[in-house]
This record gives sequence, structure tokens and C-alpha cells, in this order.
Amino acid sequence: MTLKVYADRFSQPSRAVLIFCKINGIDFEEITIEVLKLQQFTPEYKEINPMSEVPAIVDGKFKLFESHAILMCLACAYPGVADHWYPADIFKRAKIHSVLDWHHSYLRRGATGLVYNTILAPLNGLPSNPQASDEAKKILPKSLSILEDYWLEGTGQFLLGNSEPSIADISLVCEIMQLEFLSEKDFRRLLSPYKKVLQWIEDIKNATAPYFDEVHMVLFGAQKGIREQMVTQSVSNPEGGIQHK
Amino acid sequence: MTLKVYADRFSQPSRAVLIFCKINGIDFEEITIEVLKLQQFTPEYKEINPMSEVPAIVDGKFKLFESHAILMCLACAYPGVADHWYPADIFKRAKIHSVLDWHHSYLRRGATGLVYNTILAPLNGLPSNPQASDEAKKILPKSLSILEDYWLEGTGQFLLGNSEPSIADISLVCEIMQLEFLSEKDFRRLLSPYKKVLQWIEDIKNATAPYFDEVHMVLFGAQKGIREQMVTQSVSNPEGGIQHK
Repeated sequence: MTLKVYADRFSQPSRAVLIFCKINGIDFEEITIEVLKLQQFTPEYKEINPMSEVPAIVDGKFKLFESHAILMCLACAYPGVADHWYPADIFKRAKIHSVLDWHHSYLRRGATGLVYNTILAPLNGLPSNPQASDEAKKILPKSLSILEDYWLEGTGQFLLGNSEPSIADISLVCEIMQLEFLSEKDFRRLLSPYKKVLQWIEDIKNATAPYFDEVHMVLFGAQKGIREQMVTQSVSNPEGGIQHK
Repeated sequence: MTLKVYADRFSQPSRAVLIFCKINGIDFEEITIEVLKLQQFTPEYKEINPMSEVPAIVDGKFKLFESHAILMCLACAYPGVADHWYPADIFKRAKIHSVLDWHHSYLRRGATGLVYNTILAPLNGLPSNPQASDEAKKILPKSLSILEDYWLEGTGQFLLGNSEPSIADISLVCEIMQLEFLSEKDFRRLLSPYKKVLQWIEDIKNATAPYFDEVHMVLFGAQKGIREQMVTQSVSNPEGGIQHK
């Protein structure tokens, strides 16, 4: 029975799971669930994930959703995954859980809150939440500072000072990569104070090459069109850019 | 070296960790960090948890924060914890991770968003976020429905249809217990449609007796005063109650 990964490459947790499978040589079938076409709401997909979110995995009768849970499970259940991705050592593993839980309350709220409310919702004619966007604008720089000064502290170039990447590195980098949807100016202004974060993104890209770029291709393809649309909109609404708070 | 648990019993993840330690006979020292007195911001505590949140644990040189990560670590690293709390079986464990990740995005956002913005912030003279509160009012009943119809599906009385509780049961029940801060009328109106959830709360109380009530005592003590204050406020502002959306 082959592992099935239900994913949309526009979704950052989907990309994390796909890159993880590819870099670890896990045999799987990718099944695309196009979120913008609302395919996550079909009765068939709701049988797999009643939350109607991507990604999810199915292997025989076993079904699982939530990307962190999926990454942990894949690391343990499939052969050939090197220990550094999700160490067997209880205390090293605990630190990875700590980063992943932090991700939910900080980086994800910041990055997804900002990109959804200032880019994706307006471009797709969906209602955006200005207060959620304001909150995201505060949480995102704070999260990037914590990444820079705390999680990337230490001698190694990866999270927790490790010299090799873990599932937390892949998960968090994919979250940050969606910021590529912002205008080039906003992206630079937001990320440029965080030298270690920028270097870390490059280090993960290299550690997971060529799969990182392959899986992000669809995002880079969409980025150009989105940036052009945003420039058009900002000409008619010059106050609409991202402000730091 | 004794395990040190830094906690505030007013914080729901702190209560989860304390109950877990007590029911499993883990030897620990409880160190109170009073959040309303801002003790989480002292330089000493920031050395333990730079996020200035509770709970956190310290054992010798090992430090850890984020309550889900702490529960997983305690279940693995301390002797005498029965397997059902955090099963060694990869696939059973994966399902528990899935519930815990879901908790971050649904139940926690709903319950904490509501209680903080409609009760704790106004009572403590802190700014509340009406849109976050509106969002919480939508997410909370949705989360309770998912608990009732999905996570509590199956033959056993605990989450995932298990016949014995896991760390996810303790974590999620403690989250729900903070809803006791709402007025009795709002609490009843919110919870009464969810018969399985109400029964499940009782089942966890029984499974973790007498520690559940012991650790929640401070909350029940505060509840009376808060409810009286809220009644006083609602007399002067009769539109201020919780509305279902």
C-alpha cells in the first residue's frame, strides 16, 4: 500500500510534508487538493480530514491530519529517515516539540495572518480582518526576532543550534517562504534585519535541494503575478503597503 | 535533582501539567509564577522561558516550555507513567499529536480568545480586542461541535474513542475549564448542547481525582468573585453578554 499525501503546494504545511518525503526517499503518491477551488470541502476529502484542511496522509486504513503530527509520524514509521530529522533521544525530541508548539502561536499566526489578510483575501475577493492583520504585523517581527536571537542561537546553523536540520526547520522555513507573496520591498524590509534567519533559509534550501525549489516552484510562479497585481492596487491605494508596528 | 514545575494555577496549560504530574506520582516541586503580578517577566524566569509564559519545567540543566511538549516529555522521561497517557505505538501516538495540534488552532483560540477578551482583560483594565473576541465566539462553538462529533466519536469515553485518558484529554479539558469564568448562564448556554463533552469532563475529573479538583480549586475560588463582578458590570451594560454566532 503506497502512502498518499493530500496536499496543495500553495499551502505551507503541505510543502513541508512534500519536501520531507522527497528528501528522505519516502515512496508516496501526491494527490492535489486545490484549496482555492474549494476541493477540501468535498465529501470524499472530508472523510480523510473533517477539518477540510491540507495536508493529510492516508496509508491503508490509517489517516492523519495536522502537518506537525504527520512529520513526526513519517519520521518514525517510514524506513530510511536519518535520526537528526526527529531524534530518538527524548530530550532532543522534546526541544523539537517545543519549537513546533511555539510555531503555532507565534510564527504561523504572524505569517499566515499577514499574508492572508493583506494579500490573499483581497486578491480573491474574500473578506479580510484588519485587526487580525494588525495583530499579525506585530507578531511577525516579534517571531522573527525570537527565531534570530533564540531558536537560531548556538554553534550549528539550524534551529536549536543543531548542525543538521530537523522537521522543525522544514516546517518553519516553509511558513516563512509564503512571505514571498509580499511585494519585494516589503519582503526585504521585513526580513533584512534578520541575518541569521536569511542565512538559515539558504541553509535549508541547500540541505533539501533540489526538492525545496521543486516544491516551491508553484509559489515562485504565482509570486510574479501577485506582485504585479499588488503594484497595480498600490498605485490606486498608495497607503495600502505593509507598515511595521 | 528534583523536577521543578513553574506554573500559575490560573493558567490552563499549567493546570494540565500539574494534574499530570500528580496523577502519575512524578516527584516535583511547584514554583508559582503569578502571571497577573507579571512575575513571568523577571530576568530569572526569562532565563527559563524567554517567551515569558507558563508553564515551564527545569530538571538539572534541562529546561523546557510549551505545555504539550512538557506533557510528552514527562510521559517518556519519568518512570511509572502508564502507556495510555502517551502510547509508545507510533500510530496511536500520531493521533494524539493530531489532537494536540488541532487544540492550538481551534479550541485554544476559541476558549482563550473568548475568556481573555470578554472577562479577564476588562476586569484587569487591559485592552481587549473585540474582533478577536468575535472570532473566538465563532470558533468556540465550532470547536466544541468537533469535540462532540469527531474527537469523542467511538466506543470509549475519552478522546479518539479510547477507554483510558491520554495527555490530550487532560490538556483539552483544562482549556475548557477556564470557561467556568463565564457567567453561569453563558456557561450553561455554551456547553449544554454538547452532552458528550459534558460527560467527558466528568470522566476526566473522575479519572484524575482528587488532583483535578485540587488543582482547579483556585479557579473555582476566583470564579465566584468574577461572576459577581460581571453581574455588576452587566447591570450597567446589559448588552455585554456572550452572544452565540
